Amino acid sequence: MQYPEPIARLIESFMKLPGIGPKTAVRLAFFAVEMNEEDVMDFARSLVDVKRKLVYCSVCQNISDHDPCQICDDSSRDHSTICVVQDPKDVVALEKMRDYHGVYHVLHGVISPMDGIGPEDIKIAELIRRLEDESIKEIILATNPTVEGEATAMYISRLVKPIGVKTSRIAHGLPVGGDLEYADEVTLSKALEGRREL
Amino acid sequence: MQYPEPIARLIESFMKLPGIGPKTAVRLAFFAVEMNEEDVMDFARSLVDVKRKLVYCSVCQNISDHDPCQICDDSSRDHSTICVVQDPKDVVALEKMRDYHGVYHVLHGVISPMDGIGPEDIKIAELIRRLEDESIKEIILATNPTVEGEATAMYISRLVKPIGVKTSRIAHGLPVGGDLEYADEVTLSKALEGRREL
Repeated sequence: MQYPEPIARLIESFMKLPGIGPKTAVRLAFFAVEMNEEDVMDFARSLVDVKRKLVYCSVCQNISDHDPCQICDDSSRDHSTICVVQDPKDVVALEKMRDYHGVYHVLHGVISPMDGIGPEDIKIAELIRRLEDESIKEIILATNPTVEGEATAMYISRLVKPIGVKTSRIAHGLPVGGDLEYADEVTLSKALEGRREL
Repeated sequence: MQYPEPIARLIESFMKLPGIGPKTAVRLAFFAVEMNEEDVMDFARSLVDVKRKLVYCSVCQNISDHDPCQICDDSSRDHSTICVVQDPKDVVALEKMRDYHGVYHVLHGVISPMDGIGPEDIKIAELIRRLEDESIKEIILATNPTVEGEATAMYISRLVKPIGVKTSRIAHGLPVGGDLEYADEVTLSKALEGRREL
């Protein structure tokens, strides 16, 4: 016996999400069956809305419900500094800190030859186009501290330098609250390398 | 900065599911943004369908897209044996075994005074009503081997016996492939108690 067809289809949909295997998908689908109707309808509607109502900001390429996005449209922000990140989620992480008042540029990925992702597959050309505006003074490269993130930062800094815009890379080191004992060697060596006089 | 409103709503919907915390909800919501449109629409549609198209079978109370359900409607099955389970998922588990040819009755819960669930909150009355049909010969009580499952099985067997229908309880013991060393004492004692001559 199979699951009733509507449940079977919902299980399949849940299984397409990352980190959700067959058992979890079954559990979630049956949970949805028991949920109250309004919550399920809200869920369905928000799924449709993330596809229909979201756009990419034509300036910074971030996901937004407006174009230009809230940040690019905010005249109180410093539009001469661009922080380059991999992912829309990184913008949210940086904004939570409330310390950065510049604008962003979302690459939507990193250069990764192993996965067949080259510079033309991510939003680098759009970044270079923004630099034609001469008011831009600094590019902060905030891609992840992974091999691909580093390579992408390096690649962009080489493109940007001839234009005469300052580029910087976020610092590597021990995370606050972290433990020297459990830090990996590369992080430790980066932390030493980046030491500052007190 | 908040998430764009459609994403924020989707994150909230994901967080209503069991075992999905804020971080996972964010990850899933952003994954949905990047999913192809057709998959997301299918997902939304199946959510709506599990609420709109599913009914409870009027005979066995299982979730189904027909009434009566596929199993109750199948004349090749043995309608004189009813296997009583807690949950629609249990029907699927038993059907996977392909060894049982009787029909089912889904209680949708177990008696649990601690959670305020009494006999009248689960589908026991519906089961007793089915027994008015004199062709029914055996009730197999297959509630979970927990305190509440045992109590519910006991409760039902006391109701059913005066009607003159045979009741049985599924066996307890070591799971196949299990390890004596890691079995708990209660399981071991049940396994000993239920031993059979070879």
